[in-house]
Amino acid sequence: MEKKAIQDYYTDSMSHCYGCGRLNDVGMKMRSFWVEEENESIAWFKPQSYYTAFPGYVYGGLIASLIDCHGTGTAAAAAYRAEGREMDSKPTLRFVTASLHVNYLKPTPIDTILILRGKIKEMKGRKTTVEVTLTVDDVICASGEVIAVKIPESML
Amino acid sequence: MEKKAIQDYYTDSMSHCYGCGRLNDVGMKMRSFWVEEENESIAWFKPQSYYTAFPGYVYGGLIASLIDCHGTGTAAAAAYRAEGREMDSKPTLRFVTASLHVNYLKPTPIDTILILRGKIKEMKGRKTTVEVTLTVDDVICASGEVIAVKIPESML
Repeated sequence: MEKKAIQDYYTDSMSHCYGCGRLNDVGMKMRSFWVEEENESIAWFKPQSYYTAFPGYVYGGLIASLIDCHGTGTAAAAAYRAEGREMDSKPTLRFVTASLHVNYLKPTPIDTILILRGKIKEMKGRKTTVEVTLTVDDVICASGEVIAVKIPESML
Repeated sequence: MEKKAIQDYYTDSMSHCYGCGRLNDVGMKMRSFWVEEENESIAWFKPQSYYTAFPGYVYGGLIASLIDCHGTGTAAAAAYRAEGREMDSKPTLRFVTASLHVNYLKPTPIDTILILRGKIKEMKGRKTTVEVTLTVDDVICASGEVIAVKIPESML
Protein backbone atom coordinates (compact mmCIF):
# COMPACT_ATOMS: atom_id res chain seq x y z
CA MET A 1 0.00 0.00 0.00
CA GLU A 2 1.41 3.37 -0.98
CA LYS A 3 2.28 5.66 1.91
CA LYS A 4 -0.21 8.47 2.31
CA ALA A 5 0.97 12.02 1.78
CA ILE A 6 0.32 14.71 4.36
CA GLN A 7 -2.10 16.33 1.90
CA ASP A 8 -4.06 13.07 1.57
CA TYR A 9 -5.29 13.71 5.10
CA TYR A 10 -6.66 17.18 4.28
CA THR A 11 -10.44 17.32 4.34
CA ASP A 12 -12.17 17.67 0.96
CA SER A 13 -12.96 21.34 1.60
CA MET A 14 -9.24 21.96 2.12
CA SER A 15 -8.14 20.03 -0.96
CA HIS A 16 -8.71 22.56 -3.74
CA CYS A 17 -5.34 24.29 -3.59
CA TYR A 18 -3.72 24.75 -7.00
CA GLY A 19 -0.41 23.82 -5.44
CA CYS A 20 -1.27 20.74 -3.42
CA GLY A 21 -4.99 20.00 -3.57
CA ARG A 22 -5.87 16.50 -4.73
CA LEU A 23 -9.28 17.80 -5.86
CA ASN A 24 -7.92 20.62 -8.05
CA ASP A 25 -8.17 19.04 -11.49
CA VAL A 26 -5.63 21.31 -13.16
CA GLY A 27 -3.41 21.94 -10.13
CA MET A 28 0.08 20.69 -9.40
CA LYS A 29 -0.98 18.10 -6.80
CA MET A 30 2.27 18.38 -4.91
CA ARG A 31 2.54 15.77 -2.13
CA SER A 32 4.63 15.95 1.03
CA PHE A 33 5.67 13.13 3.33
CA TRP A 34 6.88 13.09 6.89
CA VAL A 35 10.11 11.09 7.34
CA GLU A 36 10.29 10.07 10.97
CA GLU A 37 13.90 8.90 10.84
CA GLU A 38 15.10 12.24 9.47
CA ASN A 39 12.73 14.35 11.55
CA GLU A 40 11.86 16.24 8.38
CA SER A 41 9.38 16.31 5.54
CA ILE A 42 10.15 15.53 1.93
CA ALA A 43 8.47 16.04 -1.41
CA TRP A 44 9.43 15.20 -4.96
CA PHE A 45 8.13 17.25 -7.82
CA LYS A 46 8.62 16.97 -11.59
CA PRO A 47 7.72 20.36 -13.08
CA GLN A 48 5.75 20.46 -16.29
CA SER A 49 7.67 22.03 -19.14
CA TYR A 50 5.59 25.23 -19.22
CA TYR A 51 6.51 26.30 -15.67
CA THR A 52 9.52 27.97 -17.13
CA ALA A 53 11.38 31.18 -16.31
CA PHE A 54 13.85 31.05 -19.15
CA PRO A 55 13.93 28.01 -21.43
CA GLY A 56 15.33 25.14 -19.38
CA TYR A 57 14.74 26.62 -15.94
CA VAL A 58 11.88 26.69 -13.44
CA TYR A 59 10.14 30.03 -12.84
CA GLY A 60 10.40 31.53 -9.39
CA GLY A 61 6.67 31.48 -8.73
CA LEU A 62 6.59 27.70 -8.94
CA ILE A 63 9.46 27.45 -6.48
CA ALA A 64 7.64 29.80 -4.12
CA SER A 65 4.44 27.76 -4.51
CA LEU A 66 6.15 24.48 -3.72
CA ILE A 67 7.93 25.91 -0.68
CA ASP A 68 4.64 27.40 0.51
CA CYS A 69 2.56 24.22 0.19
CA HIS A 70 5.35 22.03 1.54
CA GLY A 71 5.73 24.40 4.48
CA THR A 72 2.08 24.44 5.51
CA GLY A 73 1.87 20.68 5.08
CA THR A 74 4.95 20.18 7.22
CA ALA A 75 3.46 22.44 9.90
CA ALA A 76 0.31 20.33 9.94
CA ALA A 77 2.26 17.09 10.24
CA ALA A 78 4.34 18.53 13.08
CA ALA A 79 1.26 19.73 14.92
CA TYR A 80 -0.26 16.24 14.97
CA ARG A 81 3.07 14.79 16.07
CA ALA A 82 3.32 17.32 18.89
CA GLU A 83 -0.08 16.16 20.11
CA GLY A 84 0.88 12.50 19.65
CA ARG A 85 -1.97 11.96 17.21
CA GLU A 86 -2.40 10.43 13.79
CA MET A 87 -3.21 12.80 10.95
CA ASP A 88 -6.61 11.25 10.40
CA SER A 89 -7.69 11.90 14.00
CA LYS A 90 -9.92 14.78 15.15
CA PRO A 91 -9.82 17.70 15.63
CA THR A 92 -8.38 18.58 12.24
CA LEU A 93 -5.20 20.67 12.25
CA ARG A 94 -4.58 22.78 9.18
CA PHE A 95 -2.35 25.79 8.51
CA VAL A 96 -2.32 28.82 6.25
CA THR A 97 0.69 30.92 5.34
CA ALA A 98 1.31 34.18 7.16
CA SER A 99 4.61 34.87 5.47
CA LEU A 100 6.85 33.27 2.90
CA HIS A 101 10.49 34.03 2.24
CA VAL A 102 12.40 32.49 -0.65
CA ASN A 103 16.08 32.85 -1.52
CA TYR A 104 16.84 31.93 -5.11
CA LEU A 105 20.38 30.62 -4.92
CA LYS A 106 20.91 29.02 -8.33
CA PRO A 107 18.90 28.61 -11.53
CA THR A 108 16.70 25.53 -11.04
CA PRO A 109 16.67 23.15 -14.02
CA ILE A 110 13.17 22.19 -15.17
CA ASP A 111 13.76 18.81 -16.77
CA THR A 112 14.42 16.95 -13.56
CA ILE A 113 13.01 16.03 -10.17
CA LEU A 114 12.99 18.79 -7.56
CA ILE A 115 13.37 17.62 -3.97
CA LEU A 116 11.93 19.70 -1.14
CA ARG A 117 12.86 19.13 2.48
CA GLY A 118 11.22 20.84 5.42
CA LYS A 119 12.41 21.16 8.99
CA ILE A 120 10.58 22.68 11.93
CA LYS A 121 12.40 25.75 13.19
CA GLU A 122 9.92 26.83 15.83
CA MET A 123 6.44 26.06 17.15
CA LYS A 124 4.97 28.80 19.27
CA GLY A 125 1.28 29.19 19.97
CA ARG A 126 -0.61 29.09 16.70
CA LYS A 127 2.54 29.84 14.67
CA THR A 128 4.93 27.28 13.23
CA THR A 129 8.06 28.28 11.32
CA VAL A 130 9.30 25.81 8.74
CA GLU A 131 12.63 25.94 6.90
CA VAL A 132 12.53 24.47 3.43
CA THR A 133 15.21 23.67 0.88
CA LEU A 134 14.79 22.86 -2.78
CA THR A 135 17.50 20.56 -4.08
CA VAL A 136 18.43 19.23 -7.50
CA ASP A 137 21.13 16.57 -7.69
CA ASP A 138 22.28 17.40 -4.16
CA VAL A 139 22.65 21.10 -4.97
CA ILE A 140 20.45 23.51 -3.04
CA CYS A 141 18.90 25.78 -5.68
CA ALA A 142 16.54 27.64 -3.33
CA SER A 143 15.85 27.92 0.36
CA GLY A 144 12.91 29.39 2.15
CA GLU A 145 11.05 29.97 5.35
CA VAL A 146 7.32 29.65 5.87
CA ILE A 147 5.53 31.08 8.87
CA ALA A 148 2.36 29.01 9.04
CA VAL A 149 -0.61 29.79 11.26
CA LYS A 150 -3.07 27.26 12.57
CA ILE A 151 -6.58 27.80 11.25
CA PRO A 152 -9.13 28.12 14.07
CA GLU A 153 -11.17 24.94 14.39
CA SER A 154 -14.34 26.96 13.98
CA MET A 155 -13.31 27.77 10.41
CA LEU A 156 -12.68 24.19 9.35
CA MET B 1 -2.61 52.69 -29.52
CA GLU B 2 -2.53 50.59 -26.36
CA LYS B 3 0.24 51.46 -23.92
CA LYS B 4 2.99 48.86 -23.94
CA ALA B 5 3.62 46.86 -20.79
CA ILE B 6 7.08 46.58 -19.29
CA GLN B 7 7.11 42.90 -20.30
CA ASP B 8 6.33 43.83 -23.92
CA TYR B 9 9.88 45.16 -24.11
CA TYR B 10 11.46 41.90 -22.98
CA THR B 11 13.40 40.15 -25.74
CA ASP B 12 11.85 36.97 -27.12
CA SER B 13 14.35 34.76 -25.28
CA MET B 14 13.24 36.40 -22.01
CA SER B 15 9.51 36.06 -22.71
CA HIS B 16 8.83 32.45 -21.76
CA CYS B 17 8.11 33.00 -18.06
CA TYR B 18 4.97 31.23 -16.86
CA GLY B 19 4.12 34.31 -14.84
CA CYS B 20 4.68 37.12 -17.30
CA GLY B 21 6.03 35.81 -20.60
CA ARG B 22 4.00 36.80 -23.65
CA LEU B 23 5.37 33.73 -25.47
CA ASN B 24 4.34 31.20 -22.82
CA ASP B 25 1.14 29.82 -24.35
CA VAL B 26 -0.32 28.49 -21.11
CA GLY B 27 1.18 31.06 -18.75
CA MET B 28 -0.50 33.87 -16.88
CA LYS B 29 0.82 36.67 -19.10
CA MET B 30 0.80 39.20 -16.31
CA ARG B 31 1.59 42.71 -17.55
CA SER B 32 3.07 45.58 -15.54
CA PHE B 33 3.03 49.28 -16.40
CA TRP B 34 5.11 52.16 -15.17
CA VAL B 35 3.03 55.12 -13.99
CA GLU B 36 5.21 58.21 -14.19
CA GLU B 37 2.84 60.45 -12.23
CA GLU B 38 2.75 58.06 -9.29
CA ASN B 39 6.40 57.05 -9.51
CA GLU B 40 5.29 53.46 -9.24
CA SER B 41 4.36 50.44 -11.32
CA ILE B 42 0.91 48.92 -11.58
CA ALA B 43 -0.58 45.66 -12.82
CA TRP B 44 -4.10 44.32 -12.98
CA PHE B 45 -4.71 40.60 -12.88
CA LYS B 46 -7.91 38.55 -13.03
CA PRO B 47 -7.09 35.11 -11.64
CA GLN B 48 -8.50 32.07 -13.36
CA SER B 49 -10.87 30.12 -11.16
CA TYR B 50 -8.50 27.19 -10.64
CA TYR B 51 -5.78 29.25 -8.93
CA THR B 52 -7.58 28.62 -5.69
CA ALA B 53 -6.40 28.02 -2.13
CA PHE B 54 -9.80 27.37 -0.62
CA PRO B 55 -12.91 27.79 -2.77
CA GLY B 56 -13.33 31.51 -3.38
CA TYR B 57 -9.79 32.56 -2.54
CA VAL B 58 -6.50 32.85 -4.41
CA TYR B 59 -3.71 30.44 -3.51
CA GLY B 60 -0.56 31.87 -2.02
CA GLY B 61 1.68 30.63 -4.79
CA LEU B 62 -0.13 32.78 -7.33
CA ILE B 63 0.26 35.83 -5.11
CA ALA B 64 3.97 35.10 -4.73
CA SER B 65 4.29 34.66 -8.51
CA LEU B 66 2.58 37.96 -9.28
CA ILE B 67 4.66 39.86 -6.74
CA ASP B 68 7.81 38.24 -8.14
CA CYS B 69 7.14 39.04 -11.81
CA HIS B 70 5.84 42.51 -11.00
CA GLY B 71 8.93 43.15 -8.89
CA THR B 72 11.47 42.15 -11.54
CA GLY B 73 9.55 44.08 -14.18
CA THR B 74 9.49 47.17 -11.98
CA ALA B 75 13.23 46.85 -11.38
CA ALA B 76 13.82 46.76 -15.15
CA ALA B 77 11.66 49.82 -15.75
CA ALA B 78 13.44 51.71 -12.97
CA ALA B 79 16.86 50.79 -14.35
CA TYR B 80 16.03 52.29 -17.76
CA ARG B 81 14.63 55.41 -16.11
CA ALA B 82 17.77 55.78 -14.00
CA GLU B 83 19.78 55.77 -17.21
CA GLY B 84 17.35 58.13 -18.91
CA ARG B 85 16.64 55.60 -21.63
CA GLU B 86 13.57 54.12 -23.28
CA MET B 87 12.88 50.46 -22.61
CA ASP B 88 13.41 49.53 -26.24
CA SER B 89 16.93 50.99 -26.29
CA LYS B 90 20.15 48.99 -25.99
CA PRO B 91 21.78 47.56 -23.97
CA THR B 92 18.93 45.44 -22.62
CA LEU B 93 18.34 45.58 -18.85
CA ARG B 94 16.69 42.58 -17.30
CA PHE B 95 16.49 41.29 -13.73
CA VAL B 96 16.12 37.99 -11.93
CA THR B 97 14.94 37.45 -8.39
CA ALA B 98 17.47 36.91 -5.63
CA SER B 99 14.93 36.88 -2.84
CA LEU B 100 11.20 37.19 -2.43
CA HIS B 101 9.30 37.93 0.75
CA VAL B 102 5.50 37.86 0.92
CA ASN B 103 3.25 38.71 3.84
CA TYR B 104 -0.23 37.29 3.48
CA LEU B 105 -2.38 39.80 5.32
CA LYS B 106 -5.92 38.80 4.36
CA PRO B 107 -7.56 36.08 2.29
CA THR B 108 -7.52 37.30 -1.34
CA PRO B 109 -10.83 36.82 -3.16
CA ILE B 110 -10.46 35.08 -6.54
CA ASP B 111 -13.47 36.37 -8.45
CA THR B 112 -12.19 39.89 -8.86
CA ILE B 113 -9.37 42.03 -10.22
CA LEU B 114 -6.14 42.03 -8.20
CA ILE B 115 -4.14 45.25 -8.33
CA LEU B 116 -0.38 45.17 -7.81
CA ARG B 117 1.63 48.28 -7.16
CA GLY B 118 5.43 48.41 -7.00
CA LYS B 119 7.68 51.08 -5.57
CA ILE B 120 11.46 51.21 -5.70
CA LYS B 121 12.90 51.00 -2.21
CA GLU B 122 16.59 50.92 -3.12
CA MET B 123 18.89 50.70 -6.13
CA LYS B 124 22.42 49.75 -5.27
CA GLY B 125 24.92 48.31 -7.74
CA ARG B 126 23.29 45.39 -9.52
CA LYS B 127 20.59 45.02 -6.84
CA THR B 128 17.21 46.73 -6.84
CA THR B 129 14.73 46.28 -4.00
CA VAL B 130 11.07 46.66 -4.90
CA GLU B 131 8.16 46.88 -2.48
CA VAL B 132 4.92 45.48 -3.84
CA THR B 133 1.34 45.52 -2.55
CA LEU B 134 -1.58 43.44 -3.75
CA THR B 135 -4.88 45.21 -3.32
CA VAL B 136 -8.51 44.24 -3.79
CA ASP B 137 -11.14 46.96 -3.50
CA ASP B 138 -8.65 49.26 -1.78
CA VAL B 139 -7.78 46.64 0.84
CA ILE B 140 -4.18 45.42 0.93
CA CYS B 141 -4.41 41.62 0.97
CA ALA B 142 -0.68 40.95 0.64
CA SER B 143 2.56 42.87 0.63
CA GLY B 144 5.98 41.81 -0.46
CA GLU B 145 9.54 42.69 -1.19
CA VAL B 146 11.57 41.55 -4.16
CA ILE B 147 15.34 41.82 -4.31
CA ALA B 148 16.06 41.78 -8.02
CA VAL B 149 19.51 41.41 -9.55
CA LYS B 150 20.53 42.70 -12.95
CA ILE B 151 21.48 39.94 -15.37
CA PRO B 152 24.97 40.44 -16.82
CA GLU B 153 24.74 41.69 -20.40
CA SER B 154 26.86 38.76 -21.55
CA MET B 155 24.03 36.39 -20.55
CA LEU B 156 21.33 38.20 -22.51
